[in-house]
Amino acid sequence: MTQEKQTSNGVEWKINVTNGSSKIIVQDSENIFTRFWNCFKGLFLKVWKFFQNAKNIGKNDPRKVFHCLKVGMALTIVSIFYYMKPLYEGVGGNAMWAIMTVVVVFENSVGSSIYKSLNRVCGTSLAGMLAFSVHWVANKSGDQYEPFIVGASVFLLASAATFSRFIPSVKQKFDYGAMIFILTFSLIAVSGYRVEKLFEMVHERIFTIIIGISLCIFVSMLICPIWAGGELHKLICSNMDKLANSLDGCVAEYFNHNNEEVSDKNLLGYKCVLTSKATEDSLANFARWEPAHGCFNFKHPWKQYLKIGASMRSVAYCIEALSSCIYAENQAPESIKKKLCNICLNLSSSSSTVVKELSKSIRTMKKPSNIDFLAEEMNTAVEELQDALKSLSNLHNQSNETDENSATMNRLFPLLEVIPVVTFSSLMIEIAERIKNVVKEVEELGELADFKEEKEVKVVEISRIEDDDDEETVKTLQRV
Amino acid sequence: MTQEKQTSNGVEWKINVTNGSSKIIVQDSENIFTRFWNCFKGLFLKVWKFFQNAKNIGKNDPRKVFHCLKVGMALTIVSIFYYMKPLYEGVGGNAMWAIMTVVVVFENSVGSSIYKSLNRVCGTSLAGMLAFSVHWVANKSGDQYEPFIVGASVFLLASAATFSRFIPSVKQKFDYGAMIFILTFSLIAVSGYRVEKLFEMVHERIFTIIIGISLCIFVSMLICPIWAGGELHKLICSNMDKLANSLDGCVAEYFNHNNEEVSDKNLLGYKCVLTSKATEDSLANFARWEPAHGCFNFKHPWKQYLKIGASMRSVAYCIEALSSCIYAENQAPESIKKKLCNICLNLSSSSSTVVKELSKSIRTMKKPSNIDFLAEEMNTAVEELQDALKSLSNLHNQSNETDENSATMNRLFPLLEVIPVVTFSSLMIEIAERIKNVVKEVEELGELADFKEEKEVKVVEISRIEDDDDEETVKTLQRV
Repeated sequence: MTQEKQTSNGVEWKINVTNGSSKIIVQDSENIFTRFWNCFKGLFLKVWKFFQNAKNIGKNDPRKVFHCLKVGMALTIVSIFYYMKPLYEGVGGNAMWAIMTVVVVFENSVGSSIYKSLNRVCGTSLAGMLAFSVHWVANKSGDQYEPFIVGASVFLLASAATFSRFIPSVKQKFDYGAMIFILTFSLIAVSGYRVEKLFEMVHERIFTIIIGISLCIFVSMLICPIWAGGELHKLICSNMDKLANSLDGCVAEYFNHNNEEVSDKNLLGYKCVLTSKATEDSLANFARWEPAHGCFNFKHPWKQYLKIGASMRSVAYCIEALSSCIYAENQAPESIKKKLCNICLNLSSSSSTVVKELSKSIRTMKKPSNIDFLAEEMNTAVEELQDALKSLSNLHNQSNETDENSATMNRLFPLLEVIPVVTFSSLMIEIAERIKNVVKEVEELGELADFKEEKEVKVVEISRIEDDDDEETVKTLQRV
Repeated sequence: MTQEKQTSNGVEWKINVTNGSSKIIVQDSENIFTRFWNCFKGLFLKVWKFFQNAKNIGKNDPRKVFHCLKVGMALTIVSIFYYMKPLYEGVGGNAMWAIMTVVVVFENSVGSSIYKSLNRVCGTSLAGMLAFSVHWVANKSGDQYEPFIVGASVFLLASAATFSRFIPSVKQKFDYGAMIFILTFSLIAVSGYRVEKLFEMVHERIFTIIIGISLCIFVSMLICPIWAGGELHKLICSNMDKLANSLDGCVAEYFNHNNEEVSDKNLLGYKCVLTSKATEDSLANFARWEPAHGCFNFKHPWKQYLKIGASMRSVAYCIEALSSCIYAENQAPESIKKKLCNICLNLSSSSSTVVKELSKSIRTMKKPSNIDFLAEEMNTAVEELQDALKSLSNLHNQSNETDENSATMNRLFPLLEVIPVVTFSSLMIEIAERIKNVVKEVEELGELADFKEEKEVKVVEISRIEDDDDEETVKTLQRV
């Protein structure tokens, strides 16, 4: 056993000899140049890795790169207010606020940009008006009391606004606005003590903020827009697919079906569902600020997506418990597994088909015409599994009676042997039960969001196929 | 069936008559005053509810109220820079930046305030230096090219910095710093075109920012500090207790032990564990910026808390699956349940004792002396449950043989009847298995954070008790 250890003098080798003692061999100390070179090489490798990582992020989602270019563009455009004298003087040297607004407000998705923009405008306006009132009162009460009145109002309003950020309903919709309120109120109320033309200042400041906001919303909506709503929609669909693949993968892996290794990516897909709650919440929160876009109306039921997400997570919890059966110590004997293999695979495939159909339904925003049929198929598969469990108990009772010699052995262990596979099957049945809940939530989404009926399209397709069939039958007939 | 519908004219009653038709009865329209009054009453009730809600939040966690007062105080103190002429002129009218810094940097926990402060200082300084270099180059290249050089640099650096915020390692530690970098760089680089004394401006701005930051850190650390690390520590402990209570509650509810209703709060405690990942992550992220405080060193292993959290979540997933057994349609017959009741209750109580002991160990930061003993007890309970399952199969085989008359019935249903309780037991065994993982992670925390041995304290306590015992035996002897 050898261990390498970097010491201040160079490389030191510690060798554990078999009798328990250890010897330490110290190499000649390296010269400073080599050490410096190694240090530099290590740093270079780290930086190289960092950039490789960055490159991969850009490659995997080019929209992130677009977003960065959009921010750069918006900032470059807004800085024209500095370069062109008439513009600069038009806003009385307050061009700084436009730049600041762009930096702070421009977010990845359109929804979050709009959320921040509206919060900024509302917070600033409200705070501006209040600060004016306070300033007017303080002014009337004389120079002596002014700092105290202003100070007290800053203390009270800042405390109250900070507290409001703890209230869930405020935090969800106006967290940023409350911060901007405190900022603007303090700045304007206190500035009033020094600045002469307070009203002009506030007016120009709000004007530049609105310029910055308009630019942000314009750029983020018109150039490669990333809609929070669309992202949420896609996330739910892809999570559904992952859930379905994960279920299939787990069951196949448990029964070691086809002797194929199931890829970890498929197997662990359910973990994405388990950890995506925070992302879903924030996307749904931003999506509600977005105007109608693509196939989504302004009042698209984004909250329903959260319910679907929650129902999917409850399926994922069960899959998590299911996956622990794969690597459990106690395994049912192969003979019992073999009996249930096909039935379980059938249930998993019919369950995952339901989930995939739901995902397709959401993706295409059409009511799934055959979901009832598929759900019925899943139910049948559940019943088959229950029957198989029954017959398993039957079988093993019979074996007790016929196999007289090994009866004592059989009597002691049979149930214990069946336990792992019974647990696995029960969890699968529970998963099917929970998938029904997902179906319910997706159907409710279909109602709320007015999904189109898929049937009409199908009918047309079928009639076309029938036409083709007719032609083919004609051909076949001719051949006959 | 009657339905009430508010229309523009007043209240309209729609009555579905049994023959399928429906009648609509419209009341006389109310007068405007009544409607206005109702509207006002509704609004008032909403506002009242909002304030009640706010009051409860403050009551449940008074530290939130303290935080708000601290923010108000810091802002009032920093506004002295406006009121006192020498101070105001000392920072060249840049006092605004101190106020802005306090509003933006002052966060609930000390860790997040320090994180934002350091990010703000680093981002501002780095951006200031870079902006200067760009300004110098642009200045040398003549008036004609200046806007283009500055514009191009703003575009490139803003894009790059925005992109860096997508890289996980940067996002975790320097997200806010990157934003401040973009903000400061754009402001200074572009201002260079208009402002004469750029260096003084930047110098004064950084100076005021440092004043604001010092005040923030001072106030947040010295007055009723809320440490992110301490919060994380408490969160993990309380989640552990919730997990233990939840497990006990679920098992008691399943066997309807003592015929008592288990409170929902106890039963659903595991849900807090399921949803606390985001909170844990952000607390751990902020905790690493905090200096040594209380019993935590600067290099306290906060990351280990995340591992403990993850292992607790894996237990919670199983409890979620377990809790679904309580309300499942298929229930084992009471006779079978009764057989396993005590053994399952024993396992749940020994499992939850282990978890509670771990929670106590973390809370007191002492190595749990008796955890091995408790874990061993849990293992014994697991084995007992396994034995009970064995004997269950034994029993039911025997009944097949003795009970000749009902043999056919018994042969068809026995396993199916046992399935629910077998699933429940398997899940409990899996939970015990996963709790071992929590034990491992907590023991690792004990190693990393140098938890003290509890034994020394115990020995003293025992010797004291022995002394007391001696006295008591003397008393008892006298009585005898």
